Amino acid sequence: MTTLIKHAAALLMDGETSVLQNAYVVVEGYQIVSVGQTRPEGNFDQEIDGTGCVLMPGLVNAHTHVPMTAMRGYGDGNNLQDWLNQYIFPVEDKWDSRAIRACTALGLAEMIASGTTCIADMYTFCEEIAQECAAAGINANLSRGTTLFTDDFSPKTFPGCVETRALAEGWHGYNEGQILVDVSIHGEYTSRPALWTAYAQYAQEKGLGMHVHISETKAEHEECLQRWGKTPIQILDQYGVWNTRAIAAHCVWTTPEDWALMAERGISAVHNPTSNLKLGSGIAPIPQMVKARVNVALGSDGVSSNNTTDLFEAIKLAGILHNGAQRDPLAVLPDAALRMATVNGGTALGRRTGRIAAGYDADLILVDFSHLSLTPCHSVVSNLVYAARGGDVVMNMAHGRVIYKNGAFLTIDMDRVKREVAEYALPQLFGN
Amino acid sequence: MTTLIKHAAALLMDGETSVLQNAYVVVEGYQIVSVGQTRPEGNFDQEIDGTGCVLMPGLVNAHTHVPMTAMRGYGDGNNLQDWLNQYIFPVEDKWDSRAIRACTALGLAEMIASGTTCIADMYTFCEEIAQECAAAGINANLSRGTTLFTDDFSPKTFPGCVETRALAEGWHGYNEGQILVDVSIHGEYTSRPALWTAYAQYAQEKGLGMHVHISETKAEHEECLQRWGKTPIQILDQYGVWNTRAIAAHCVWTTPEDWALMAERGISAVHNPTSNLKLGSGIAPIPQMVKARVNVALGSDGVSSNNTTDLFEAIKLAGILHNGAQRDPLAVLPDAALRMATVNGGTALGRRTGRIAAGYDADLILVDFSHLSLTPCHSVVSNLVYAARGGDVVMNMAHGRVIYKNGAFLTIDMDRVKREVAEYALPQLFGN
Repeated sequence: MTTLIKHAAALLMDGETSVLQNAYVVVEGYQIVSVGQTRPEGNFDQEIDGTGCVLMPGLVNAHTHVPMTAMRGYGDGNNLQDWLNQYIFPVEDKWDSRAIRACTALGLAEMIASGTTCIADMYTFCEEIAQECAAAGINANLSRGTTLFTDDFSPKTFPGCVETRALAEGWHGYNEGQILVDVSIHGEYTSRPALWTAYAQYAQEKGLGMHVHISETKAEHEECLQRWGKTPIQILDQYGVWNTRAIAAHCVWTTPEDWALMAERGISAVHNPTSNLKLGSGIAPIPQMVKARVNVALGSDGVSSNNTTDLFEAIKLAGILHNGAQRDPLAVLPDAALRMATVNGGTALGRRTGRIAAGYDADLILVDFSHLSLTPCHSVVSNLVYAARGGDVVMNMAHGRVIYKNGAFLTIDMDRVKREVAEYALPQLFGN
Repeated sequence: MTTLIKHAAALLMDGETSVLQNAYVVVEGYQIVSVGQTRPEGNFDQEIDGTGCVLMPGLVNAHTHVPMTAMRGYGDGNNLQDWLNQYIFPVEDKWDSRAIRACTALGLAEMIASGTTCIADMYTFCEEIAQECAAAGINANLSRGTTLFTDDFSPKTFPGCVETRALAEGWHGYNEGQILVDVSIHGEYTSRPALWTAYAQYAQEKGLGMHVHISETKAEHEECLQRWGKTPIQILDQYGVWNTRAIAAHCVWTTPEDWALMAERGISAVHNPTSNLKLGSGIAPIPQMVKARVNVALGSDGVSSNNTTDLFEAIKLAGILHNGAQRDPLAVLPDAALRMATVNGGTALGRRTGRIAAGYDADLILVDFSHLSLTPCHSVVSNLVYAARGGDVVMNMAHGRVIYKNGAFLTIDMDRVKREVAEYALPQLFGN
């Protein structure tokens, strides 16, 4: 399958965030094979006209829990403990395969329609999530978030480990890497060294990445310090958890020593600005982390704490929040915010995505620049960071395949999904 | 003209943010005359079916500079002084009537499409802005932002005062209050006591409101303290500026003493979270101001420092920013954020708007709750605050007149506006 995308202005996300006017981008299979300003020779299986649009790398949502789309706004306005204990956990007890599939598809549709082409997800029921991602055509790093509250533990029989192994054996590398599997320690505060050692070894042995919640709340960070005399980043390092490509979600309370270690080990921080603000967790020290050469990517977190997965919102928030919090209008420049959502996300997920260049994955979106809120356009980058919305996305190509175009989902049967959510999943989960 | 809006779920914005299912709302002229759950007797000139939608009060953008839509993203990524001196001010020198009309219409269209029914604008060329607002059908409190850098001053001949008087005489109360005129001191740091006295007297004499930039930046606030030994709120109070309904835009650096004075005088604070963050001004102490009983409304500020006027973004940001900054997930509850954008905005602008109740202005919008990002809906209020976007708005009725429906502008000729912006205004302002 070959595709020619023509006549768009292409934001390459090279070092200079150059914009190539009237670009011709050729896709073969799941890869970009050429980028230029003259029409390439030959015929193509399909041609996509991007006139009036900006073609940019698809967005990478580097920390999410897709099925939690079911809990959009559920229990909002409560404090964190009540919200978790009275709302979120009781619902999570009721998941079954059919409900998780329906809610995963619903969540993926929202992401795809708003320009996301790659996600890093952490949840349970990963077999079902993998099937839905595979069918939807989105790129996904999937992980079974594992908790362990005992030292009496055998990785051979412990459910989280069994599921992680099944997920890795069944799905890692599926469809030329559309699906990758990461290993996930849910968090330092929800697990024990026995798990850290087992997962560190397993990830290294199988060449898998690692996905962990790190220092999201002050209490979590400080209790770790009390427990171990070290921060979460540091204590997990002692057990070899970071000896592989790794995603550290949140990092709100990380320290300069943590950042030095993260830069040295190549641990990616995932900034989830909306969730961190909404839940009252705090404001992650992003400009400082960037300065310390930590790779910073962006995430939405679960819809239950956001309450959307429109990553353009996270880009804008990452681009303005730190300016205000640090009273420096240049704290995060617009091109840095865009990098977080594209090429830095690719690094976090271990994918060649986030740039428009030959050899990169064909994860591409078209943004309609004729929309009112993008008029006039003095700067493509400024408009994308500060004014664009998911609703401006008119085409989503993930892994070389067009999965969304002009409001239509080409891989998801939305009528069926909406019916399944309304008639099965919501009654099952919420009893209404 | 009578209109029946039927079958929507109506968010009344009464004290309890009640939602009336399957509501019937009757509009006569520019007012709501009845709200109920049974179909009222009689025939209506038009009926609007809101099935699947939420009907809510139109949004009030209580601080904006509409024509600055022309500068969307212009000079982004520069520090504040360079941005103003090298980008914004030189462009503002080139305005003429035709350019300002085109850019005003462009800005109003963006606002209307995203659910705004009332604005408080501060700028120059107010005659042209008034004509465009009148034609577009939006409710507007217009003011000629006035600066004065000398004490040698006659209000009879000073251009800002002459224009303010012309605006007030020509437009205040137009079309049963669709257009109101406020008096505007641009800011303490850009004016002198001679202006404060003259405008305070004029506003009281004519029964006009007041619109002033207050304590936006730390430098501005502290220089005022050095100059006068008082904060901007306090020194202007000494000259009688607050002896009328008043809008104080920004209030980022206001103090507890300021809040007490604001509550006592009935001065409304307008929170512009996006602009304050983007420009590095800081984070206004909104929960503290609310606790001190200050009326807090919401604004977008100019597009040049935002870079959109989608007020749903400001609602969400107001609803999450302070939770994060103050590490309290309950710092601003969702219903408080909605009040800022509706009924509190009405108070700030001196309008009976922001509620769905008999006797209130018929400023109403329909939000399509079938959209993916609003599915599922566990709480209408949560979905509106944290997940809705301007793009979800499918109907805008301002002052009793439907001015936008299903993507179509009923009062603005968008083809003409886009052509005027592209072919006249942008070349005139930016020389390209």
